Amino acid sequence: MLINCVAYRQGIKLAELPVEQISDYLVHDDCLVWVALRDTTDAELDTMQEEFSLHGLAIEDARHGHQRPKLEEYGDTLFVAMHLVEMRDAEITVGEVSIFVGRNFILSIRNRSNLHFLGVRERCEREPELLRLGSGFVFYALMDEVVDRYFPVVEELESQLEAIEERLFNKGMARANIAKLYELKRKVNILKHAVVPLMETTGKLYGGRVPPACVNTQEYFRDVHDHLIRINASIENVRETITTAILVCQSTVSIEQNEVNKRLAAWAGIFAVATAFVGIWGMNFEYMPELKWSFGYPLALSLIGLTCGYLYYRFKRSGWL
Amino acid sequence: MLINCVAYRQGIKLAELPVEQISDYLVHDDCLVWVALRDTTDAELDTMQEEFSLHGLAIEDARHGHQRPKLEEYGDTLFVAMHLVEMRDAEITVGEVSIFVGRNFILSIRNRSNLHFLGVRERCEREPELLRLGSGFVFYALMDEVVDRYFPVVEELESQLEAIEERLFNKGMARANIAKLYELKRKVNILKHAVVPLMETTGKLYGGRVPPACVNTQEYFRDVHDHLIRINASIENVRETITTAILVCQSTVSIEQNEVNKRLAAWAGIFAVATAFVGIWGMNFEYMPELKWSFGYPLALSLIGLTCGYLYYRFKRSGWL
Amino acid sequence: MLINCVAYRQGIKLAELPVEQISDYLVHDDCLVWVALRDTTDAELDTMQEEFSLHGLAIEDARHGHQRPKLEEYGDTLFVAMHLVEMRDAEITVGEVSIFVGRNFILSIRNRSNLHFLGVRERCEREPELLRLGSGFVFYALMDEVVDRYFPVVEELESQLEAIEERLFNKGMARANIAKLYELKRKVNILKHAVVPLMETTGKLYGGRVPPACVNTQEYFRDVHDHLIRINASIENVRETITTAILVCQSTVSIEQNEVNKRLAAWAGIFAVATAFVGIWGMNFEYMPELKWSFGYPLALSLIGLTCGYLYYRFKRSGWL
Amino acid sequence: MLINCVAYRQGIKLAELPVEQISDYLVHDDCLVWVALRDTTDAELDTMQEEFSLHGLAIEDARHGHQRPKLEEYGDTLFVAMHLVEMRDAEITVGEVSIFVGRNFILSIRNRSNLHFLGVRERCEREPELLRLGSGFVFYALMDEVVDRYFPVVEELESQLEAIEERLFNKGMARANIAKLYELKRKVNILKHAVVPLMETTGKLYGGRVPPACVNTQEYFRDVHDHLIRINASIENVRETITTAILVCQSTVSIEQNEVNKRLAAWAGIFAVATAFVGIWGMNFEYMPELKWSFGYPLALSLIGLTCGYLYYRFKRSGWL
Amino acid sequence: MLINCVAYRQGIKLAELPVEQISDYLVHDDCLVWVALRDTTDAELDTMQEEFSLHGLAIEDARHGHQRPKLEEYGDTLFVAMHLVEMRDAEITVGEVSIFVGRNFILSIRNRSNLHFLGVRERCEREPELLRLGSGFVFYALMDEVVDRYFPVVEELESQLEAIEERLFNKGMARANIAKLYELKRKVNILKHAVVPLMETTGKLYGGRVPPACVNTQEYFRDVHDHLIRINASIENVRETITTAILVCQSTVSIEQNEVNKRLAAWAGIFAVATAFVGIWGMNFEYMPELKWSFGYPLALSLIGLTCGYLYYRFKRSGWL
Repeated sequence: MLINCVAYRQGIKLAELPVEQISDYLVHDDCLVWVALRDTTDAELDTMQEEFSLHGLAIEDARHGHQRPKLEEYGDTLFVAMHLVEMRDAEITVGEVSIFVGRNFILSIRNRSNLHFLGVRERCEREPELLRLGSGFVFYALMDEVVDRYFPVVEELESQLEAIEERLFNKGMARANIAKLYELKRKVNILKHAVVPLMETTGKLYGGRVPPACVNTQEYFRDVHDHLIRINASIENVRETITTAILVCQSTVSIEQNEVNKRLAAWAGIFAVATAFVGIWGMNFEYMPELKWSFGYPLALSLIGLTCGYLYYRFKRSGWL
Repeated sequence: MLINCVAYRQGIKLAELPVEQISDYLVHDDCLVWVALRDTTDAELDTMQEEFSLHGLAIEDARHGHQRPKLEEYGDTLFVAMHLVEMRDAEITVGEVSIFVGRNFILSIRNRSNLHFLGVRERCEREPELLRLGSGFVFYALMDEVVDRYFPVVEELESQLEAIEERLFNKGMARANIAKLYELKRKVNILKHAVVPLMETTGKLYGGRVPPACVNTQEYFRDVHDHLIRINASIENVRETITTAILVCQSTVSIEQNEVNKRLAAWAGIFAVATAFVGIWGMNFEYMPELKWSFGYPLALSLIGLTCGYLYYRFKRSGWL
Repeated sequence: MLINCVAYRQGIKLAELPVEQISDYLVHDDCLVWVALRDTTDAELDTMQEEFSLHGLAIEDARHGHQRPKLEEYGDTLFVAMHLVEMRDAEITVGEVSIFVGRNFILSIRNRSNLHFLGVRERCEREPELLRLGSGFVFYALMDEVVDRYFPVVEELESQLEAIEERLFNKGMARANIAKLYELKRKVNILKHAVVPLMETTGKLYGGRVPPACVNTQEYFRDVHDHLIRINASIENVRETITTAILVCQSTVSIEQNEVNKRLAAWAGIFAVATAFVGIWGMNFEYMPELKWSFGYPLALSLIGLTCGYLYYRFKRSGWL
Repeated sequence: MLINCVAYRQGIKLAELPVEQISDYLVHDDCLVWVALRDTTDAELDTMQEEFSLHGLAIEDARHGHQRPKLEEYGDTLFVAMHLVEMRDAEITVGEVSIFVGRNFILSIRNRSNLHFLGVRERCEREPELLRLGSGFVFYALMDEVVDRYFPVVEELESQLEAIEERLFNKGMARANIAKLYELKRKVNILKHAVVPLMETTGKLYGGRVPPACVNTQEYFRDVHDHLIRINASIENVRETITTAILVCQSTVSIEQNEVNKRLAAWAGIFAVATAFVGIWGMNFEYMPELKWSFGYPLALSLIGLTCGYLYYRFKRSGWL
Repeated sequence: MLINCVAYRQGIKLAELPVEQISDYLVHDDCLVWVALRDTTDAELDTMQEEFSLHGLAIEDARHGHQRPKLEEYGDTLFVAMHLVEMRDAEITVGEVSIFVGRNFILSIRNRSNLHFLGVRERCEREPELLRLGSGFVFYALMDEVVDRYFPVVEELESQLEAIEERLFNKGMARANIAKLYELKRKVNILKHAVVPLMETTGKLYGGRVPPACVNTQEYFRDVHDHLIRINASIENVRETITTAILVCQSTVSIEQNEVNKRLAAWAGIFAVATAFVGIWGMNFEYMPELKWSFGYPLALSLIGLTCGYLYYRFKRSGWL
């Protein structure tokens, strides 16, 4: 589905184009054509391939989707695949955006995601002096938008981790905590698979040999790269903490078990003593003088009570009860 | 066993050749000879070595099989070994294909596998403009086919993992889950040993110094490389998740044990109290007035029943029962 | 908030400047302007950007803070972000300092931290022969101060670890130890995120291609780099030891549980024997001769006592009690 | 102890030499002197050092043995140390071979090992066209022999691991399995220390800058390198599997304990119920009508039996018994 | 404290110098001044700085000590810091030696260690042809001595590990074993921190760009480097084995607990049966014919005895007792 198709000259919007006129504008070196599509059909992709003369392998990648984030050069044209990651109701969803960056055009194709880039186009049109930098700047602006949307996801994951951490040492929470940590790790890995390849990719957009379209905007890509490094550091921190937290959960279970065992042992001991006493006076020997005493019974009960009480006190003091 | 032996010129099929005529065609630079063998005998290999003038070490590798995936240059000729990985009835089987890529010939030798490449030859013959690119393109087409067949294997492994994950927190499944995770890890490692060396290998087929036969098809090999990186990322994800899942299984066992222990303790406590009561009234003291009461017995039973009931209620409420 | 704004010539203090005169002094190549700000407002930052002609992206980073430590070159000017790490009441707090290093100016902006650099300025003014080395030396002096303040933090973390280690094998401390180790790991990671990126950064300030401002002070930056390597080695050591210590804690819990179990088993055994004995003489058979003996009862009690005593002795000797 | 000392010209055996004549033959560039020693004395080494003008540090290494596998260049001469690894009665033994490779000589010194190289010399003498390649080829042939002998060791270790894996989930085997896995890891590490440094070493014998003696035989060394990579991959696989297997063993122990606990709890429950019943009818209340019934006793026994039977059935069904 | 201060020419000892004359000898290019100090005062260091014109940062490092092992070039002069590691009564102590290597001087400063280098000087003076190689050779000789002293420490650590391994599967040793393994790991890490940075350092003293003073002695430094690689491999092996051993200890504890639980369960079962029997015959039913039998009591005892005996036999056979 076509969203926009606009031509710019010197950073100023010329016109909204019908798709068929794209190639007419591309012959003018000072024009920039910026097309945005979403959830494209095969026919649309074929049109685009023709209008922009795109390489077959790249079009295949854009068509099939489910690409790993990557940047590939096909002659003058860059093909970039990025993941659009969103947090909806504590669940992660992943869409994709494929971007073709030519000498004087930008084609972005967004699939399976509601995150749109209208704001990017607006901001670019408001700053013609930057838009004048050409396709490289638009490419940066789109990438920056994609990466900026990773931050709230990381923060959400971090706060989910903190929520688990607060209950980490609570009794009886181990099963729930472990299940949540396991689930959280799965989510973190989804984000990681969006971030790490993109980080490697942006590292090639400044400093050394840089694709021609990005030469004038190296400092901007360094900034994006820096953001990705920061996000990645947070991700690694979360991942590592999850591993440690699972370990801690395991320990918590054992410690709790220890405590249950001690209480079990203590009560078993108290009742075993009582049972032994009543067993003794339940024996049928003929000559057991205390059985004849008038106060034998209350004395016996008191003795049993006192002994058990004393044991209870001892266990209490030593922390077993 | 010979499968095909065909000569092409400019991407067009010339003729099916008898094996002995191969060297006659090889002298023509514009001819491409494409030979496919399977489960070869020593004699066949010797013939091939002679017809194509192949290096002794490479022939030895093709003969003995069980090679690690690799690419070696012997002068103009490339020798490539790849694993053919199949999933049959949830079990992984590994065959091998050895490919010799010369300036104007391709020799593929498939061993211990039913995966065939007839489809590749067909598609190539249907697209003469690509087949015209020469042995490098055929090499790509074969490699692409091999790698494409890894995808369903990865997906099968991933879905086996998901099946385990669904039962991960079920009670009493720990032993079965761990056994399955262990088995799954073994399978994943088999695939990994097919993928990782091949990934390193294809990384050398584009970008920097590239073997002459592959110069015109670099973008295709980059595509294969990209597929392998994606497969490898999935593999690593599965491997890591398995490790975490085993850890989680361990925790589950401990947690379950905790629950058993608590129930054991609770019931032991209830019965210990009952036993203590009946023991008291089983004592043989002469002066135990309640023994004489008409309603002593039912009162005693009621008292015991109430006490145990109260304990049961308390344990129930605190989650021990 | 402005702290200082001073111009130097040949290492000698010329004058305290009002902010607006900065650009007047900057035109003199032999002048060095050194400005220090803290907790800046947007307006102050805008003034600074104008006076020193700073790059927009760098100013954005300084404004938003929460940067990963990094060094970026914008033309002639270096932008450096560092973390200021402090230990207050056993809790770690992190502030930031952003430094702009130009050919003949230094601008430092400190945020969310009480650690000040007045001592640095004082020492520099006392050693004009070093201050004469220019902005690179001031940059070194500030960085050295930041890094020197990491040492007491590392030492505090190490001593917290030692405090835990001393109680590592104490009984009943497992839960507290694990909670403390977990907390300690969190703190260590905070410091690590301050140190590692800065270490990578300083590694670029000597040896190979070095930013012009730092060429004359390479040996000093090597020294700072060396300090960071040392700090990092300590951090890694602490981190690794924490992991091992958690493992040890887990073992301790199991061992303690073993001991509890053994004691439980031993006492259960002793009382089970006593209960069996008293049960036997509580049976109602008519012909149980020992029941008629005058000394049957004391004999029985003695027999029970002796048996239990013997069991107690055996359990004691085998270490179960 | 001298084993052989032979001079070759153009791949053809000239004569067995007495040790003193070695230097006479070395002056002829077209001669190759190949000396094999074993368990040398200091005197023999001194003679060799003199005859071949070997470097003192290398001779020291050969004398003391217990070297890490390595390759060192001393001017024209290569010094190589390799481990000879053997499996005798499921136990690993490690010997050493030191090889000096000169422009036209080979000196091999074997220590603490019964693995000999007579077969290598025989094969080389049978193929004069290869032996003609000079000392580099002999060096390859010796190294190939050493590396080929690692394969059966790896296979033995793999089959030991498989033997353990088959019993991994058997009950009551945990202690034995863990002990064997620990022992197996020790053995694997011995082999690893033989293989990894040698692998790094052979990687330098083809491709880039190669010692002069090995220039003509690069493809052979690439083959050896490839073997070592394969061995190393197997080793890493075994090592990783051992770690996972120990983890699995730990889980198995916990699971088994769970089962024991459940059975314990079930039986304790059944007997606790029986004990409570008989305790009730052992009370001394005067008015317990059922005690007077003629069939009270068999009824009571039946009731107890039925209740316990029902409990048994319930526990059986829920898998606790 | 000054130990020695000697001037050499062409490897021959000229004279013991008073410290003040050092600079007089240094002007002669063919002289070598070799000074050894220990536990220096600030004044001594200041003198040395003056006599040898040493860089302030290096002097600071030597003064403060507690450096990470490192090598720094200050113009022509090398500054090297190494750890002196000793094993005294199974405890590791760490001292330091700082060495300044100039074109024609060597200054070694030893702190907090009793390991001295008198033997090095002696050996050097006995071999003037090597001492003639200049300051580089003395530097090598000192470094070689330092590294040689790591070997007995590694061996001691390895034998401590072996001592623990022998008791690894002994019952009741888990707590002691884990404590010792933890302690051993601490010691190993101390050695590691001495070895790894030094290993990296020596790797720069041969092969590529080498400091001028060490150019003629590259093969010697390669030898030292090789020793350090060997030591490091041993250290890594010990470290890895410790980790596995702790894992094994954990398993041992669980297995032991399993055994205790089984014995507990078995004895509990036996006594529960006995208690149930005696309880039955302790009931007060009027019509219990067996109570009237003459041999009722011995029969009952026999029945109980036989049943318990049979249970004992069954538990024994199934390994629970």
